[in-house]
Amino acid sequence: ANDLHHSCQWGSGIRWGDGPTDTGMQRLALSEDDKSVRDWFIQTMKDLKCNVTVDEMGNIFAVRPGRRTDVPATFIGSHLDTQPTGGRYDGILGVLAGIEVIKTMNDMGLETEGGVGVVDWTNEEGARFPISMISSGVWAECISLEHAHNLKEVPTVASLPTAASAPETMKSALQKIGYLGDVPCSYKSTPMAAHFEVHIEQGPYLVSANQRVGVVTAVQAYRWFRLNVIGRDTHTGTTAFEHRADALYAFAQIMVRAREVAAAKGCLASVGIVDAKPGSVNTVPGEVSFSLDIRGPETELVAEVEKELRTDFDAIAAAEGAGIGKPCRVEWTLDFDSPAVKFHEDCIDCVQQSAQAVVADASVADTKSLVRTIMSGAGHDSVFTSKRVPTSMIFIPCKDGLSHHPEEFSTADDCATGASVILQAVVRYDRK
Amino acid sequence: ANDLHHSCQWGSGIRWGDGPTDTGMQRLALSEDDKSVRDWFIQTMKDLKCNVTVDEMGNIFAVRPGRRTDVPATFIGSHLDTQPTGGRYDGILGVLAGIEVIKTMNDMGLETEGGVGVVDWTNEEGARFPISMISSGVWAECISLEHAHNLKEVPTVASLPTAASAPETMKSALQKIGYLGDVPCSYKSTPMAAHFEVHIEQGPYLVSANQRVGVVTAVQAYRWFRLNVIGRDTHTGTTAFEHRADALYAFAQIMVRAREVAAAKGCLASVGIVDAKPGSVNTVPGEVSFSLDIRGPETELVAEVEKELRTDFDAIAAAEGAGIGKPCRVEWTLDFDSPAVKFHEDCIDCVQQSAQAVVADASVADTKSLVRTIMSGAGHDSVFTSKRVPTSMIFIPCKDGLSHHPEEFSTADDCATGASVILQAVVRYDRK
Ligand SMILES: NC(=O)NCCC(=O)O
Ligand SMILES: NC(=O)NCCC(=O)O
Repeated sequence: ANDLHHSCQWGSGIRWGDGPTDTGMQRLALSEDDKSVRDWFIQTMKDLKCNVTVDEMGNIFAVRPGRRTDVPATFIGSHLDTQPTGGRYDGILGVLAGIEVIKTMNDMGLETEGGVGVVDWTNEEGARFPISMISSGVWAECISLEHAHNLKEVPTVASLPTAASAPETMKSALQKIGYLGDVPCSYKSTPMAAHFEVHIEQGPYLVSANQRVGVVTAVQAYRWFRLNVIGRDTHTGTTAFEHRADALYAFAQIMVRAREVAAAKGCLASVGIVDAKPGSVNTVPGEVSFSLDIRGPETELVAEVEKELRTDFDAIAAAEGAGIGKPCRVEWTLDFDSPAVKFHEDCIDCVQQSAQAVVADASVADTKSLVRTIMSGAGHDSVFTSKRVPTSMIFIPCKDGLSHHPEEFSTADDCATGASVILQAVVRYDRK
Repeated sequence: ANDLHHSCQWGSGIRWGDGPTDTGMQRLALSEDDKSVRDWFIQTMKDLKCNVTVDEMGNIFAVRPGRRTDVPATFIGSHLDTQPTGGRYDGILGVLAGIEVIKTMNDMGLETEGGVGVVDWTNEEGARFPISMISSGVWAECISLEHAHNLKEVPTVASLPTAASAPETMKSALQKIGYLGDVPCSYKSTPMAAHFEVHIEQGPYLVSANQRVGVVTAVQAYRWFRLNVIGRDTHTGTTAFEHRADALYAFAQIMVRAREVAAAKGCLASVGIVDAKPGSVNTVPGEVSFSLDIRGPETELVAEVEKELRTDFDAIAAAEGAGIGKPCRVEWTLDFDSPAVKFHEDCIDCVQQSAQAVVADASVADTKSLVRTIMSGAGHDSVFTSKRVPTSMIFIPCKDGLSHHPEEFSTADDCATGASVILQAVVRYDRK
């Protein structure tokens, strides 16, 4: 837990209280702060006698050798990058729990069959480069290296004071901080026996039910789109509503509709980025681009929401500008598609048993009720590792279910519980 | 007309056709391109034997002396700055018509009682520095010099590739291009007998009625606001709609409502700039800032729309986030208030008579019908000059009523008509 806050010295974000750790985090992937924490992570792992490799996506793998050298290591992984207005737990907890596990194993002189590794995956958030989990995606060979290397940072991040003048690609950003490794980014070059990840829930279920551990069995589906609404620039003062093709007004109706349609199907639809051009008080915007994030418990549901929205957005756009015969139109680009995932039974079992063991000495009558199975609303690198190796996750509660916010918080106790559960899960898996 | 397109070589904008003049304009106030056209304007006026002065707001006054030196000159004025995606006529026509008038007077050897001046007003558009007509406003002593000098450029413009790294103020931008003059910016230091302005209508009335000249009798009221919606950043994938305080979703509903309320009162409400923070695909925006431009034929109506919207926006914001007890809230800042204006009877008469004279030889039975009186939907520097000296305006038709768009267009004939009417109006006024 000390290390956790220690590692947050690089990229401290918005301050929200007076305490020394009452700040959020702003450590965008492959920024200078990300480089600093990576350097620290590598040094820490070397001090713990781990072998460290860096691949072409900047993923860092640190392995504590086991008895056998002919089997791949079991990995604990997560990410050290954050949202622009992120907190101190999302991702960071998972890597730091991995460090704790290795420390504990060293202290106890514990020998394992296979090795035990810790991995820091690059740009999990998708905040700077707009594909989440992209580097575990390349590792799983679900995303091509070329596509990932050429991906550009988003304009909102490119305009941060810390940003370079021209938008970076992932490759140029990797080069800039010296983390373009030479190990091919693939599960073939860096094989794993299994992948475990501990993470804050980022949602309200555990905390509101007073439960201690979530055994994550699945991850919901999501799709990320970039959309453009094309209308016509015109004067705000001289152009009657019926003479406009107001791309921003069309966007406003679109966003309202998106929530309606998603809610009706038990899904989510969210807009995080919006850019209206030309951006002048007295010009009706002729072009609006925005991000759309659709999620749902089943892949098919997300597809249905998308389908309905395509029809509805076209209708909204057609109406705006119909009066002048120059209706707005909407263009869609799919940036990222993450179908719903079910984790591996063996890994889930290891986590389930470990969670029960860890909460067993809690002073409540029914300790079973402290653990629940849960579906993840957020994506995680475990989504991609699960395509290639047995995988599962552990959730711990977080205050108000709040995440992607500077005030994101989990108690030191809950963090320690997470670390204990993942330690046991890895050992259990190693002994299978 | 040649000069008009000649002057558009500095700051050419978006190309929309193949012809040499088939481009829009992007000549933001006090940019390098604005400096070039200013240099050209001054040289042109000096060549035409005018006396040129530059005031503390960078307004350029060029005066052709009259018989008497004890009376102020009658001015023809408009502006050479444009919108980011502007056209070749808005403002430019008015200054160029002024140059034509001086040339014609020189050619004819016409002597006037008082002098005749041409003025280029700085940042009329309000596109780079978000107060329109700010420099005629300072001249009229309706806006303080200090307030104007400290005004910062808008972020959307500050992020253009041509922009400096830190946002400029009007004063720093004036200094940068060498147009911070030493003449005090005031109607007392640079007095005028009257102010006339020719402009494209920027609306559809003349063109759709096949009319040639608009005698502008009034300008509608408008108010410009900057608004902030404060919500709470949170995760798009793990946060149910009822747990969100989504500032962008509140904005979307707000924009839809604004049109409804304005339309019901025969007014306009428009959003040209929007900025959502932190700007990440998978973070619900916790803060949205946007511009709001409300207009209407009467000052009172604009005030009524504002009042209703204040109540409605609060209600929308309160609902978004109510579920978590952290509702969004809305903050308003008034940037600019331009009450409805009625122009001066004497000036209107001069324009009316001149317009009738100019269209008299058109080959239609009832030439009277070619001229109409009209209210301006857009603001113009004439709004501020009218507070201190007799003022009126002349409109000519423009294609589709389109303005603040690269394809803005008026025929050479219509431009020439505008120049002839303003020449006659100035001479008529001088003889009164
Ligand atoms: N855990 C997390 O915030 N991951 C980012 C990817 C997502 O948006 O779900
Ligand atoms: N004529 C013109 O476009 N002026 C800009 C000020 C306004 O928005 O009305």
